[in-house]
Amino acid sequence: MRIAVLGTGLVGRALAARLSELGHDVCLGTRDPAATRATTDADGHLTETARWVHTHPEVPLLTFAEAADRSELAINATNGSVSLLALEATRGHLDGKVLLDVSNPLDFSGGFPPTLFVKDTDSLGEQIQAAFPDVRVVKTLNTMNASLMVHPEELSEAHTVFVSGNERAAKQDTVELLRQLGHEDILDLGDITTARGTEMYLPLWLRTMQALGTASFNVRIIR
Amino acid sequence: MRIAVLGTGLVGRALAARLSELGHDVCLGTRDPAATRATTDADGHLTETARWVHTHPEVPLLTFAEAADRSELAINATNGSVSLLALEATRGHLDGKVLLDVSNPLDFSGGFPPTLFVKDTDSLGEQIQAAFPDVRVVKTLNTMNASLMVHPEELSEAHTVFVSGNERAAKQDTVELLRQLGHEDILDLGDITTARGTEMYLPLWLRTMQALGTASFNVRIIR
Repeated sequence: MRIAVLGTGLVGRALAARLSELGHDVCLGTRDPAATRATTDADGHLTETARWVHTHPEVPLLTFAEAADRSELAINATNGSVSLLALEATRGHLDGKVLLDVSNPLDFSGGFPPTLFVKDTDSLGEQIQAAFPDVRVVKTLNTMNASLMVHPEELSEAHTVFVSGNERAAKQDTVELLRQLGHEDILDLGDITTARGTEMYLPLWLRTMQALGTASFNVRIIR
Repeated sequence: MRIAVLGTGLVGRALAARLSELGHDVCLGTRDPAATRATTDADGHLTETARWVHTHPEVPLLTFAEAADRSELAINATNGSVSLLALEATRGHLDGKVLLDVSNPLDFSGGFPPTLFVKDTDSLGEQIQAAFPDVRVVKTLNTMNASLMVHPEELSEAHTVFVSGNERAAKQDTVELLRQLGHEDILDLGDITTARGTEMYLPLWLRTMQALGTASFNVRIIR
């Protein structure tokens, strides 16, 4: 499948690399590809993202619009705080397509742990669906770190991944992709409003990470 | 141990019955014991709570203040929306004692699923600790239904219970009580501000309950 991963951070790179390994035709979307390729840190060294782009020629780096246009399915792996802005650049190029939203509405302006900039009566997943009514938004994977998203077998026991979305067929495509990534316990919570649940789980995720001293954990729903 | 369970709802009754069975000297606190004993429904039948009180003479029903005064350790099992008001009635009677707070800040005024009336930058656990600085508040058990609180073995696999509180000794007493109830995987998240995490998990709990069609489930942290 032709998949566009939007966002070049840790999550976007992990998803792009693994989906490409699995045989999908993957491209990476960013605001300004030339700038992303040449970004350097304070010491003048290429950033991790820039190095990744140069060492993964099988994953072309395109603009958000080009990536969306080229794709059959897209993944929003941009920072939650800029997701709506980034997706604006794809407007018209994702209509009728499935958009996996793996972002979280984290607000780091008050330090760590972050708070949520939308919650309880709304969610980022819903905001994205409302802003792009012709895109088939499915919230998923936002409850675990990037490494477990693409290698769930890193934990010794099966763990749960949640799915929220308004359309059954879009969730079926999502479940198929999650299974390819190795996820076994996939729980469909219902429509996109259930993204409130998984996004509001983040404060517990953050505190559990602090208590355990590792981000390599996930919940399993015991029933 | 002399334990006061504050609140006569499903959670309070479950905890009082089980802790009494385990050999503790348990009393139940309510606003108006005479009224609670005589409460009838629309058909003139005693409510479930009133019947419970009559069939559990080993658990005396007292006022909030009497129950608190009689206890070495108390449990806030009142409805979250009235917890601060109910605890006001215990003021001065719980100083220096451990108070397990199992309540949740659920706001049903907009229907189901409820929203949270405090969240993200504060929590009900913190509000209780702030209102009663001499009480040793420990948030726990608020992430599962009443039945699993007192019979965790009802699920076939071990599952996780979280603990949040400012004082190590109070949390040790709590862990001991949780072990007596049968809990095996007990995770200390840190100080009382970590109650934000477990309280904000409720929206995911509610949607998982709807998806599974049962409240008999809990998370286990796989690490």
